[in-house]
Amino acid sequence: MALLESTHRRKNPLTGRWVLVSPHRNNRPWLGATEAVNESALPKHDESCPLCPGNTRANGDSNPDYEYTHVFSNDFGALTPNASDQSQSLESDSDLFIADEASGECRVICFSPEHNKTLPELELDALYEVVKTWKENYTELAQHYECVHVFENKGEIMGCSQPHPHGQIWAHSHSSTEIEAEDTQQLAYYKKHGSAMLADYAQKEQADQTRVVFENAHWLVVVPFWAAWPFETILLTKDNIQNFSQLNDIQINTLAQALKVLTTKYDNVFNCSFPYSMGWHNAPANRGSDEQHWRLHAHFYPPLLRSATVKKHMVGYEMLAESQRDLSAETAASILQAASTTHYKNTAG
Amino acid sequence: MALLESTHRRKNPLTGRWVLVSPHRNNRPWLGATEAVNESALPKHDESCPLCPGNTRANGDSNPDYEYTHVFSNDFGALTPNASDQSQSLESDSDLFIADEASGECRVICFSPEHNKTLPELELDALYEVVKTWKENYTELAQHYECVHVFENKGEIMGCSQPHPHGQIWAHSHSSTEIEAEDTQQLAYYKKHGSAMLADYAQKEQADQTRVVFENAHWLVVVPFWAAWPFETILLTKDNIQNFSQLNDIQINTLAQALKVLTTKYDNVFNCSFPYSMGWHNAPANRGSDEQHWRLHAHFYPPLLRSATVKKHMVGYEMLAESQRDLSAETAASILQAASTTHYKNTAG
Ligand SMILES: O=P(O)(O)O[C@H]1O[C@H](CO)[C@@H](O)[C@H](O)[C@H]1O
Ligand SMILES: O=P(O)(O)O[C@H]1O[C@H](CO)[C@@H](O)[C@H](O)[C@H]1O
Repeated sequence: MALLESTHRRKNPLTGRWVLVSPHRNNRPWLGATEAVNESALPKHDESCPLCPGNTRANGDSNPDYEYTHVFSNDFGALTPNASDQSQSLESDSDLFIADEASGECRVICFSPEHNKTLPELELDALYEVVKTWKENYTELAQHYECVHVFENKGEIMGCSQPHPHGQIWAHSHSSTEIEAEDTQQLAYYKKHGSAMLADYAQKEQADQTRVVFENAHWLVVVPFWAAWPFETILLTKDNIQNFSQLNDIQINTLAQALKVLTTKYDNVFNCSFPYSMGWHNAPANRGSDEQHWRLHAHFYPPLLRSATVKKHMVGYEMLAESQRDLSAETAASILQAASTTHYKNTAG
Repeated sequence: MALLESTHRRKNPLTGRWVLVSPHRNNRPWLGATEAVNESALPKHDESCPLCPGNTRANGDSNPDYEYTHVFSNDFGALTPNASDQSQSLESDSDLFIADEASGECRVICFSPEHNKTLPELELDALYEVVKTWKENYTELAQHYECVHVFENKGEIMGCSQPHPHGQIWAHSHSSTEIEAEDTQQLAYYKKHGSAMLADYAQKEQADQTRVVFENAHWLVVVPFWAAWPFETILLTKDNIQNFSQLNDIQINTLAQALKVLTTKYDNVFNCSFPYSMGWHNAPANRGSDEQHWRLHAHFYPPLLRSATVKKHMVGYEMLAESQRDLSAETAASILQAASTTHYKNTAG
């Protein structure tokens, strides 16, 4: 039996962490929790939704009558700009009780005025506006903060407290744990090979095609060799680009197309609105170097495993040891390759 | 405002990763997913349960009529002893496609013959047998495998596919990502300070008491300063002990007591069977050194945040940046300190 068909581990070169792969395990019977599917028809406009155009939010502000996107400051943000004026470390003589101040901003981005739409259901011009909004907010915030996290939680099982299509931005002065890990790993690779890790990786996947889900002139979507979540993908720039502020109009347009295809394929895997957390990893800002070791990319982490109601639980072994997956990255890629690019809601009837 | 009352970060010295703490954020309204609570009365014996005494499992084996615990090989284990005979690395000249073989064993441990019991509902003598079973299985497996993960997933929302009280053991020849991280960090601390990180940590928490939930002569339960999950705790040996095989009878007995108190307090926080993943971190086995930098400990990762139905979702920012928590470790500790040591089911009526 070839290595990749029996139980094995793969290493994530971006984080340095491993994932345990048990391809045979997808055959076990499922007795565990199933998730409720909430496909009840939502209205186009919901009076009680704090994200719909014209409505008033908890803090008294009214949303404008926006046409594409609308951005506002999160009323319950995990980060606030008022930095504490304490010293850097709580107990500087100790290696056990280490605390640092954290200062930043949290924003909400409404992707569409329509309460009942999701990304794959938006037209290309609307998706273009979403990417442009990401770029504009990133560019502004990156002037003040080293780390600007642009992400979306989609679906109730991903802790999303609002069905209205929206994403978030959390920006802060420090570099987060994942960005630090990816920066360290990409820099080490660059020093060793003289080329960017994700540029080399994109080329090898393009040449091989086994794990490629979609590509156009500027973007590549693959199930990474080291994927942890069942249908995890990475969306990579093909260009020498480190962050959102560098995107030109063609790159924005082709990214809108890549987003449309990927999220449509996701929905078509189980004929449901496919939940996920997705987010962008820009190079740390304001470091004064050119960050040639970094490539702009997004991770999509969708939890569904076998159906619209059976998800992968990253618990127990995964929390205490390392990630584990039951179907191989190659199997997941072939399912995503076969999934139609026409949304299932548009093919019915 | 003191640093620890405004938004800040704390560093986990065992893994080197950070957690973002936003104490003010627990005040936001909750509109998100709620979890179903399944408190329907289970029978003491369930004919269809593969873990109940006397029943037949999928592979045809029958469970004995066991009195305390019963251990069997997982019929759908993620690891199997038949190692692939492939070379160590898939593509040894590449830093991008790294794969290793993984060989090991998975076992299931029934904690009690009674289908409808959970750890806090077991008598001390039954908990003693659970710990003894952990020790025996660890000791046997550690002769063959470097890494023996002993853990329990409790509750449907932790992906537990079986209500019958049980835990698991996954043992393998390689060292998992979390064990490697903890080993590296503890070793670096030991080299710098000449003492074990968790021994020093236990002493400081004991002296301070703010985060201590329970202690007896041999064990200490604290909400760690760097806790990520709302009611996360760490259960630490007070002795110079690195792994389960070293436990003597008094240490087993007092551990049974600590488990009883901690899991009872957990259930009493929201008057429900408190879900969690818990697991033991033993020092890596068979390394031929005395591992003085390591201390045996268990982590409890419970997901509930505000009630029996509202959990913390570690999604989006947490997956892409770092863990984030809404109530401080000190607040969580004070709630656990106040929780009764008499199980809520025994006080009603
Ligand atoms: O082995 P079980 O209980 O069927 O499965 C559960 O625990 C495993 C180990 O933590 C996880 O890999 C699974 O995702 C989870 O559903
Ligand atoms: O901000 P929301 O959507 O209310 O909250 C959600 O996303 C946040 C950022 O990923 C998480 O910290 C929360 O646990 C999750 O419920």
